[in-house]
Amino acid sequence: MIHPKYKELLIRQNELIDRNNEKKLDGNGMYDRYKYPVVTRHHVPLHWRYDLNKKSNPYFMERLGINSTFNPGALYLNGKYFLMVRTEGVDRKSFFSIVESENGIDHFRFIDKPIIWENPYPEETNMYDMRLVLHEDGWIYGTYCSEMKDPAASVRDTSSAIAQAGLVRTKDLRKWERLPNIVTPSPQQRNVVLHPERVNGKYAFYTRPQDGFISTGNGGGIAFGLVNDINIPIIEEEIIIDEKMYHTISEEKNGQGPAPIKTEKGWIHFAHGVRNTAAGLRYVLYTFATCLKEPNQIVAKPGGYFMAPYGEERVGDVSNVLFCNGVIVNDENKVFIYYASSDTRIHVATTTIDQLIDYTFNTPKDLFHSLECAEQRAALIESNLALLKRENKQ
Amino acid sequence: MIHPKYKELLIRQNELIDRNNEKKLDGNGMYDRYKYPVVTRHHVPLHWRYDLNKKSNPYFMERLGINSTFNPGALYLNGKYFLMVRTEGVDRKSFFSIVESENGIDHFRFIDKPIIWENPYPEETNMYDMRLVLHEDGWIYGTYCSEMKDPAASVRDTSSAIAQAGLVRTKDLRKWERLPNIVTPSPQQRNVVLHPERVNGKYAFYTRPQDGFISTGNGGGIAFGLVNDINIPIIEEEIIIDEKMYHTISEEKNGQGPAPIKTEKGWIHFAHGVRNTAAGLRYVLYTFATCLKEPNQIVAKPGGYFMAPYGEERVGDVSNVLFCNGVIVNDENKVFIYYASSDTRIHVATTTIDQLIDYTFNTPKDLFHSLECAEQRAALIESNLALLKRENKQ
Repeated sequence: MIHPKYKELLIRQNELIDRNNEKKLDGNGMYDRYKYPVVTRHHVPLHWRYDLNKKSNPYFMERLGINSTFNPGALYLNGKYFLMVRTEGVDRKSFFSIVESENGIDHFRFIDKPIIWENPYPEETNMYDMRLVLHEDGWIYGTYCSEMKDPAASVRDTSSAIAQAGLVRTKDLRKWERLPNIVTPSPQQRNVVLHPERVNGKYAFYTRPQDGFISTGNGGGIAFGLVNDINIPIIEEEIIIDEKMYHTISEEKNGQGPAPIKTEKGWIHFAHGVRNTAAGLRYVLYTFATCLKEPNQIVAKPGGYFMAPYGEERVGDVSNVLFCNGVIVNDENKVFIYYASSDTRIHVATTTIDQLIDYTFNTPKDLFHSLECAEQRAALIESNLALLKRENKQ
Repeated sequence: MIHPKYKELLIRQNELIDRNNEKKLDGNGMYDRYKYPVVTRHHVPLHWRYDLNKKSNPYFMERLGINSTFNPGALYLNGKYFLMVRTEGVDRKSFFSIVESENGIDHFRFIDKPIIWENPYPEETNMYDMRLVLHEDGWIYGTYCSEMKDPAASVRDTSSAIAQAGLVRTKDLRKWERLPNIVTPSPQQRNVVLHPERVNGKYAFYTRPQDGFISTGNGGGIAFGLVNDINIPIIEEEIIIDEKMYHTISEEKNGQGPAPIKTEKGWIHFAHGVRNTAAGLRYVLYTFATCLKEPNQIVAKPGGYFMAPYGEERVGDVSNVLFCNGVIVNDENKVFIYYASSDTRIHVATTTIDQLIDYTFNTPKDLFHSLECAEQRAALIESNLALLKRENKQ
């Protein structure tokens, strides 16, 4: 018999999912934030967490609790908005699951069951942060972080781990094929993203070489590399296209977010920049553009960040993190940026292709020195004061 | 003359202490949280903080401020609920003081004065996190962390410290006797807890061996050891009973919470698990059960955490910490879990022995790999879907 508490909780959960989202009014002309997160742990279906049977679960306990839902890949398919959610159980293991919405800003619902595929890597312990790409070859690819204990670590060292780039593909988001891990010259990899088109007839990847599991060490920066055969994904050469840099938002490390967006002016990239603070790392989101024909050549890069954690976004399981690995452009060139705050819940921000181009190509560059940045701002102020004076005269 | 502001502040403080607590409605079947913390720094008596004399304190300044009240030991005695509060002054030194309540969920009041005993350890600098145990020998024991500067540290090194297990006892919570520090094979110790009954005729302790002051290094895990004579407390052998483990909630370290609770199915333990994040350590609470006759043998261990910081609990002096070293079972088998959030204030969560047994013995185990955890959840979903189908047919 179904536990009577199930219906009670189901009503409350449906109220949460059916709630309409609202644009916030404090937009900065670059994008709009929304009032509510779009996916939280409270959105995960009750029958994924509770044993519904009163006999085996008399207290209606959460038998397999969910800790957090974050860092989703995103895909626009058949007019619907799909997110591949990093779903973390209370046991700290992440798995992938899909939510779907009709409009991209609210009413996201989990579909089917957690994603499972045949696994040729029994040592793979955790998987997360999938980037979804509909490639011009017709497949939907997912690249994700595939993590395992460092086999070279001593028995009592329970922390040392190795991160590699996992690769899967599907045609329908239901049946998944696991391809081999992507092999690169770097000992560790995170934030590996497939470019949606072939480059020189090859599969092109953005990578983020790193020496250690958390620290990029002598590695770091967003790199670019090519693969001949997607079934044997080997990148022989990684070339850094966007370096980490002293006293910028990317001093500690950076990494490609979702696959870049194709526009008439170039590929527009979202990426995360990381700096260190006395309270740990701070993750913000920035953009840059690369050349349409050579997506490894940067043609525009605004100074500073596009988005940073704000208000309630600041606090969570890993505070001070804003991270985006999923973005959707719909049929009307409206852009949906799915970002997670503090490794805990998923939000949306909306903008347009025109706004993204304007922002990425017309935002002043980073000048790297306080006084030069002050002079840069003084020039803006002078120009504004002159305008105000002219207009007031009229 | 008493400063006139004293009465004003006293009225407000009494309103705070007299306020009734309320169960939160979002229970998960495992326990209930409450609306208000049960002890905060604002509960500390005014005459412990202010010089009340208008002449010597014209501005009615807090002369000896309190920074935080957290990590309490707990004891049920003569039908009343006592907490041994880690009370931290604005000078960063912790001392112990006792609060008392009639019902365990609200109206906690500090009694008497800070606890003081004769001290044979002049080098002891800080003391905290006491576990209170009414032992079958008739004494109430307290084990706590006794900390001092590392005598081997260089002059300019002002951080290196040594943590040892202090031991005290009392019959009435008023008069305290300081016994010698507990000697163990490990260079440092924290989270040392006395088992409430003798094992093989000896005093039994849970310990947490560690190499460094913060880092457990090659040590780590909850261990078990025996003491012949409580007046000369020497543990000659520590055996790990619950190890820290890669990519679990206890990857970085773990430690016994309060003394375990005796139930018909076994001893139920609360313990803290610690993982590292980009924003520092994250402390959560988990449970496991050991054999009634051999409390060093684990017989059940649920996957993942029982409780983690949530909402306002997430932020404090040391954010992202939920820590429990005090729990009470009253005459009606109702369980009161006293936990501190983010090293700042004390909360209560309530449950029952029956629920704790159900949770600890019937929650699925940690399977340690993302895909296996996803399959574990898929099995729960299948079973729920079958139940829903059957019931809908009827």
